[in-house]
Amino acid sequence: MAFAPDIAARLEEQAIELPSWAFGNSGTRFKVFGTPGTPRDPFEKIADAAQVNKYTALSPSVALHIPWDKVDDYAELRKHAEDHGVALGTINSNTFQDDDYKLGSLAHRDDRIRRKAIDHHLECIDIMDETGSRDLKIWLADGTNYAGQDDMRGRQDRMHESLQEIYARIGENQRLVLEYKIFEPAFYHMDVPDWGTSYAQVAALGDRATVCLDTGHHAPSTNIEFIVMQLLRLGKLGSFDFNSRNYADDDLIVGAADPFQLFRIINEVIIGGGYGKDGDTAFMLDQCHNIEDKIPGQIRSVLNVQEMTARALLVDREALEAAQIEGDVLKANGILMDAFYTDVRGDLAEWRESRGLPADPMAAFLASGYLAKIAEERVGGVQAGWGA
Amino acid sequence: MAFAPDIAARLEEQAIELPSWAFGNSGTRFKVFGTPGTPRDPFEKIADAAQVNKYTALSPSVALHIPWDKVDDYAELRKHAEDHGVALGTINSNTFQDDDYKLGSLAHRDDRIRRKAIDHHLECIDIMDETGSRDLKIWLADGTNYAGQDDMRGRQDRMHESLQEIYARIGENQRLVLEYKIFEPAFYHMDVPDWGTSYAQVAALGDRATVCLDTGHHAPSTNIEFIVMQLLRLGKLGSFDFNSRNYADDDLIVGAADPFQLFRIINEVIIGGGYGKDGDTAFMLDQCHNIEDKIPGQIRSVLNVQEMTARALLVDREALEAAQIEGDVLKANGILMDAFYTDVRGDLAEWRESRGLPADPMAAFLASGYLAKIAEERVGGVQAGWGA
Amino acid sequence: MAFAPDIAARLEEQAIELPSWAFGNSGTRFKVFGTPGTPRDPFEKIADAAQVNKYTALSPSVALHIPWDKVDDYAELRKHAEDHGVALGTINSNTFQDDDYKLGSLAHRDDRIRRKAIDHHLECIDIMDETGSRDLKIWLADGTNYAGQDDMRGRQDRMHESLQEIYARIGENQRLVLEYKIFEPAFYHMDVPDWGTSYAQVAALGDRATVCLDTGHHAPSTNIEFIVMQLLRLGKLGSFDFNSRNYADDDLIVGAADPFQLFRIINEVIIGGGYGKDGDTAFMLDQCHNIEDKIPGQIRSVLNVQEMTARALLVDREALEAAQIEGDVLKANGILMDAFYTDVRGDLAEWRESRGLPADPMAAFLASGYLAKIAEERVGGVQAGWGA
Amino acid sequence: MAFAPDIAARLEEQAIELPSWAFGNSGTRFKVFGTPGTPRDPFEKIADAAQVNKYTALSPSVALHIPWDKVDDYAELRKHAEDHGVALGTINSNTFQDDDYKLGSLAHRDDRIRRKAIDHHLECIDIMDETGSRDLKIWLADGTNYAGQDDMRGRQDRMHESLQEIYARIGENQRLVLEYKIFEPAFYHMDVPDWGTSYAQVAALGDRATVCLDTGHHAPSTNIEFIVMQLLRLGKLGSFDFNSRNYADDDLIVGAADPFQLFRIINEVIIGGGYGKDGDTAFMLDQCHNIEDKIPGQIRSVLNVQEMTARALLVDREALEAAQIEGDVLKANGILMDAFYTDVRGDLAEWRESRGLPADPMAAFLASGYLAKIAEERVGGVQAGWGA
Repeated sequence: MAFAPDIAARLEEQAIELPSWAFGNSGTRFKVFGTPGTPRDPFEKIADAAQVNKYTALSPSVALHIPWDKVDDYAELRKHAEDHGVALGTINSNTFQDDDYKLGSLAHRDDRIRRKAIDHHLECIDIMDETGSRDLKIWLADGTNYAGQDDMRGRQDRMHESLQEIYARIGENQRLVLEYKIFEPAFYHMDVPDWGTSYAQVAALGDRATVCLDTGHHAPSTNIEFIVMQLLRLGKLGSFDFNSRNYADDDLIVGAADPFQLFRIINEVIIGGGYGKDGDTAFMLDQCHNIEDKIPGQIRSVLNVQEMTARALLVDREALEAAQIEGDVLKANGILMDAFYTDVRGDLAEWRESRGLPADPMAAFLASGYLAKIAEERVGGVQAGWGA
Repeated sequence: MAFAPDIAARLEEQAIELPSWAFGNSGTRFKVFGTPGTPRDPFEKIADAAQVNKYTALSPSVALHIPWDKVDDYAELRKHAEDHGVALGTINSNTFQDDDYKLGSLAHRDDRIRRKAIDHHLECIDIMDETGSRDLKIWLADGTNYAGQDDMRGRQDRMHESLQEIYARIGENQRLVLEYKIFEPAFYHMDVPDWGTSYAQVAALGDRATVCLDTGHHAPSTNIEFIVMQLLRLGKLGSFDFNSRNYADDDLIVGAADPFQLFRIINEVIIGGGYGKDGDTAFMLDQCHNIEDKIPGQIRSVLNVQEMTARALLVDREALEAAQIEGDVLKANGILMDAFYTDVRGDLAEWRESRGLPADPMAAFLASGYLAKIAEERVGGVQAGWGA
Repeated sequence: MAFAPDIAARLEEQAIELPSWAFGNSGTRFKVFGTPGTPRDPFEKIADAAQVNKYTALSPSVALHIPWDKVDDYAELRKHAEDHGVALGTINSNTFQDDDYKLGSLAHRDDRIRRKAIDHHLECIDIMDETGSRDLKIWLADGTNYAGQDDMRGRQDRMHESLQEIYARIGENQRLVLEYKIFEPAFYHMDVPDWGTSYAQVAALGDRATVCLDTGHHAPSTNIEFIVMQLLRLGKLGSFDFNSRNYADDDLIVGAADPFQLFRIINEVIIGGGYGKDGDTAFMLDQCHNIEDKIPGQIRSVLNVQEMTARALLVDREALEAAQIEGDVLKANGILMDAFYTDVRGDLAEWRESRGLPADPMAAFLASGYLAKIAEERVGGVQAGWGA
Repeated sequence: MAFAPDIAARLEEQAIELPSWAFGNSGTRFKVFGTPGTPRDPFEKIADAAQVNKYTALSPSVALHIPWDKVDDYAELRKHAEDHGVALGTINSNTFQDDDYKLGSLAHRDDRIRRKAIDHHLECIDIMDETGSRDLKIWLADGTNYAGQDDMRGRQDRMHESLQEIYARIGENQRLVLEYKIFEPAFYHMDVPDWGTSYAQVAALGDRATVCLDTGHHAPSTNIEFIVMQLLRLGKLGSFDFNSRNYADDDLIVGAADPFQLFRIINEVIIGGGYGKDGDTAFMLDQCHNIEDKIPGQIRSVLNVQEMTARALLVDREALEAAQIEGDVLKANGILMDAFYTDVRGDLAEWRESRGLPADPMAAFLASGYLAKIAEERVGGVQAGWGA
């Protein structure tokens, strides 16, 4: 059995952007473990990211993080990426690691610090112009740890003003994407804690401002696919940061903690027109491979997304709607589950081979000797991490 | 020490609407325990509610629930209330107890059922015209229990259309208030699960449509006062359903589970201009006195709200802002905590006495013999509960 | 492809006890919806439960709930069950619906009420002697709604004494199984809120006292399979109450909310020797079919458990251990996921047919006309629910 | 009004151990902000800790963390502490920062690594002999990030064996205290995730093994005071790690997030005989002052504990028990709340002054110039943090 042609074709539309920082070291506040072969600079990160695409054809672009991925010559970086078969993608700003940002950035009370944070974003847009990136993704660590520490309303208003100034600089073909997160690093309140706040803020900016949904940034028991549906309905689901979690923002491999949830999320993306050529929703990974190998971890991740996409594409929409119209709860649920329970791995292997890709990308990559090679070659220097 | 005159005056602005159903029996799915003296009809519920106001002067109105509080003659009910010193307040609709609503009401796929649910709301507005109520509060039990059971997007769109039709009938001086709830009675998705959805829905209706925030309807660890701030900032915080919770929608006495949270919530209401004569935010209770006496439970509740309001009014706003500007985290937090830790109970007793009220409303009510009287008088008939 | 003989054989060891109350009506505190054909007495409940076994051969016994399933003649009920091809199983006590138990039962301060609650359990053991049941399952609704309402320590001690007296009456071949639950119906504290408390209580009783793990009774983000492992390690996992949840004790169809979690749980049961002939852990369902058909809901449930059992039996234990010894995180996880992602439905259909069962039990039951028949026949009388 | 003599006396029994690491820098995985004056070594940490005790007389001892606080000569460190008016307290082991511990320590599959981790603990006990410490506190970061990564049962057994070997070396007057934590740094399972596991493990060791309860290490909505009650009842509540949280292990100032919870916890400690001279339960802080000043943060913390202790001591136990016996839910709750709502700050100021302490320790410390002094003096060197 192989995929029907329409499903095979739709699978070709899949593109999952990789984060450059996934190839550097990451960890918890307790410890960051290093690994031999970890990239020392953006060029090496992109080389590693390109491996994922080489074996899967699923990840044609790489997101950068400024300043971690700052280089003197972005044209050179862009060419380096293209030489490796990938494009430069979303630019992520960073206003959480400078000492000035201890109490906030775009929402800070101090004009000087707010100015600095705005300027950082303007610089990011300059970089986007050079890298050819479409999206400026803003995740703000802004918030407070203690009640009374600051006035939440004033912070919200200042953040709005800062975003307006940044948005004014966004190009015609560019987008501002605002991420939300319930907590961490702030532990009393975050200035953009939920989709409602992100939505209210970007709606006040304009059409080219949208929301980024990170699957790990919600309160326990939140129905994430509902938010996917709602943001697509409101025309504001700009992008995903995929990962998975059991507890907080665990940043595990997407699909690892709850594959059925990933299936439901992608199912709503497809229903809502956000998938593939239909839609404007960018699929990205945002994960931390604290203890597992990074490149294989990313390969596993894009394959998980692909497998759940294939399953979601298999849902018998007509039968499902008929059962829903009937009000037959068990039948409707059963039709959805039939797709989820279908083992698509064999079909995907076949699909890959017919496109000149290895049937088993993970095995092919591990057999390639790349990990041994970088472990040997990348000696000396400072391994990249969340500081660079 | 007594309250400064401005604080004493602001305390007089406080009005907390009581729910008629708090005086009937309530419980869990496991058991509803009855109590001697429980009202048998809306008239007796209002008589009980009036007792709370008599001893506290804090609860000048009573919310009704249709059909539980349906009567033949609302003018008579209104007069009965006025004779007892209270007004009729918010009208709450109910589309969760008719067999037709098993799979939804305003979001149902079936035109007939949706029509019926819309008509029920139109009838509620008719009743509002008779009772002189300002607010139609809509809490929808609509949702699904299983993934795939229905199309969430279609439900959202149908709900929007239904609300539009209801909103069109809302009078010039009336408001539609849409409540949200994360779960229960639906356990996979609710059609209005979060403030973002309620906000998006009412924003699409118009100025007289706002959000109701029930303090028990959030995911664990949600910062509720942030939502209060945000909705006030967006001009959409129509009303509160106060209660408290440790786990889910426990519907405990407001302030019982976390008094500091109640303080923070009221503090944000004051900051955001939602309190008293300043604002349009209605304070209501929505609680279940499953095991404690109902009238004393309501007295305890309004006193809790009053005590936390008094504390929040005591916050030294100037000093707080100065500390916030300084970025002195501990000082700013300390100033807020100073107000919270102030024992206002003596001052409130004095405040009450100066207004002809008993210093200790709870003790005065218990000494009044009212509970024994209703237990003796209200014999026979069916005790009111969530079915009537 | 068909199951290897050892796996096919192990699947035959599976037995999942059904709760009689799953065939009666259930709902939320907001509404209990009825269905045509709902049983009116324990005899009809057992007849319905027998249908599940008829089509699946997975549910050879039915748990009773006292007093809901009280009959004059248990020998007759037992014969009725046997005539329908099933046995009577666990006896569940109920100390949460009598008015006396408003503030507790086995932990109550009042000697009279505690005595009554103990006596109820002794009566349950008498019934067990007649029904031939092995297990007395005790789920206590005991707890408080407000801090200070009672002394938690005293309640714990009194509960211990009550349990001791009940345990003393447990027969040589019988067991006392103590269930825990984090909340509901009590909302401040439950007297047996977690596995630690249940374990400490039953460890103090003796060898024939064990713990019942209801999969819906934990705090959000609890790793349930860890508890399964630990209780098996401690020799105290008496039984499961299977169901699933997204929020609280939602009592949805087992496996519906998170099939991967169900797989992990069963995987730990197998690892820990609790499965089938190896072990003493009873598999039971405890669910509420609020909106879906009850008998098909139970069929779906036992099939879900069977499908996840089959997947868990497929785990390549040797390869898994080798990868674990290597410390290869991705490989080890991948081996587990390989089993989970295997579609066992075809093999199970074959397995069933080879045993004279319908390949698709759900379809076969729905085609049987049984639902129409009971809807027609069971007219008049009072539909069974949580009150009877 | 001043405290009754018995309460004043009981307040003198209070001792709250400070963690040396609270005076070094801490942060999140995103950023660790430094502060001028941060200690560079254990001697400076102790000097800072002594300041807290100087102004409050509440913190007579300092916990050490090995290897962060390793010194060549512990007798010298001990003398240094005594010269500053404090003692050396609990020794905390650390098996989470060595590269060898990436996949575990006491539970690791590899004998060599397990041996190393055990030896580290034996070394800690050697240090305890020199420092005169009573308690070895073990918090294990051991766990896994992905299902299948390792066998949880085997890990539990190996951990038990490792602990046995460590326990065998614990002196007659020493204790092994095992901490539990639901998650972080491991995100699928922790080897000691809950009190039940810690209890089962220490019960298997012997009388001198007890549990450490960190108030930030539970699932959302866990009733912590219940666990306090239960562990005291079982004779196993060795110590507290106090802090507070809104979301995960936020490590905020104790009492900051939910003062009423802190009150309830201390109330249970008093009821259960764990407080002061009565009991063997050690009070410790374990917090991260990520953005606030560290020494004032610790002063605020011990004062919060003291204030809630004073309130809990004020509970009218006789009246409370009478109301509980009556079954008067509202009265019983009201009596507890009366104590919580009492403003004890004035009485505590008076209590302090009568003992030669400043009425306002925070103000007195801030006025002392100590912070400016250390900022000036401690130039150069490496500021202490979680790495040292």
